[in-house]
Amino acid sequence: MHIGKVVGNVVSTKKEETLTGFKLMIVELINHKNEGIHKELVAVDLVGAGRGEYVLVATGSSARVASGQKDAPIDATIVGIVDTFE
Amino acid sequence: MHIGKVVGNVVSTKKEETLTGFKLMIVELINHKNEGIHKELVAVDLVGAGRGEYVLVATGSSARVASGQKDAPIDATIVGIVDTFE
Amino acid sequence: MHIGKVVGNVVSTKKEETLTGFKLMIVELINHKNEGIHKELVAVDLVGAGRGEYVLVATGSSARVASGQKDAPIDATIVGIVDTFE
Amino acid sequence: MHIGKVVGNVVSTKKEETLTGFKLMIVELINHKNEGIHKELVAVDLVGAGRGEYVLVATGSSARVASGQKDAPIDATIVGIVDTFE
Amino acid sequence: MHIGKVVGNVVSTKKEETLTGFKLMIVELINHKNEGIHKELVAVDLVGAGRGEYVLVATGSSARVASGQKDAPIDATIVGIVDTFE
Repeated sequence: MHIGKVVGNVVSTKKEETLTGFKLMIVELINHKNEGIHKELVAVDLVGAGRGEYVLVATGSSARVASGQKDAPIDATIVGIVDTFE
Repeated sequence: MHIGKVVGNVVSTKKEETLTGFKLMIVELINHKNEGIHKELVAVDLVGAGRGEYVLVATGSSARVASGQKDAPIDATIVGIVDTFE
Repeated sequence: MHIGKVVGNVVSTKKEETLTGFKLMIVELINHKNEGIHKELVAVDLVGAGRGEYVLVATGSSARVASGQKDAPIDATIVGIVDTFE
Repeated sequence: MHIGKVVGNVVSTKKEETLTGFKLMIVELINHKNEGIHKELVAVDLVGAGRGEYVLVATGSSARVASGQKDAPIDATIVGIVDTFE
Repeated sequence: MHIGKVVGNVVSTKKEETLTGFKLMIVELINHKNEGIHKELVAVDLVGAGRGEYVLVATGSSARVASGQKDAPIDATIVGIVDTFE
């Protein structure tokens, strides 16, 4: 998994049906020194994260599995809101 | 997932049968500041995207699952046309 | 797999249920000359690793499989404590 | 998927049985401006590609699925010969 | 897959049970000009490779499948000893 910070969201009306109802958040990945690592991704939010919050992101097939939608094209999910990382 | 911009397409007559009928679009990945990140990929288009449009791309096994063709060699799919990202 | 060094941990109260009970460790990946490679990840600890220890990390679906939680959003696990690497 | 150019091949007598009979081609990945992106991989050829040809490459579990050998250690396959990309 | 050179091995007494009995080799990935590409990984050896030998490495779920241990946290395997690459 990775630590990241929510920096925005994506609105997409014309999309795969199985993505309907999911919030699509833009997450900038960071390291444990809270430094950006020049990587960002769009993740489905499973825990109600908001802009500016630090989150835990899972990627790959594990992300799809967590979404509960085994046929959805989900390769990244927000699976936790981070209290602390040190 | 990633945000990207459709910049072209690939024509391949001699290819795996299970790819027949799919449009193969070249997508340049961008970040949420609309900056290129020096990554591009070829994605199967599932939502009717056109050149110059901003799209949402899924990769890995989640891309294959979304295509509905579980035996097709698809590792990237366009799964949404992006209205806004901010 | 990769060799890494445990440099911290993540605390996340509000998270996917299937992650409950797992320790979330921050691992800096290194090469066999013990040099950092500017990559880190958050891994579920399966072998009782502690801060400062050298560990073996598996990623992707293999990480989820090892956790025994096939529905958990786990894409990285600590699967061994490294005695030596040379 | 990615566009690439076949630049060589690998000969390996002592290998996993399930790889027997497959041609192992070295493919340099390129972008849509026909520029190298400093990435290459070894892909199983499923469409009879030759040295110097432009090809479409799939990676990950989708590559294995396309090979028809679900137990083979195949993570990249050539799945099309590219006529044009623009 | 990738071409690589075996440069060492990892000893890990305290590890996931399913990894028991497997040799863990450190492989530096190279390109077809025999140049390092600043990537290395730890791979389970399935073909009896030795230090200094050139090998073919598979990664991801395909690596686990090849190991025959579908529950093992294996994301990279040595699947061939390379005779020539050109």
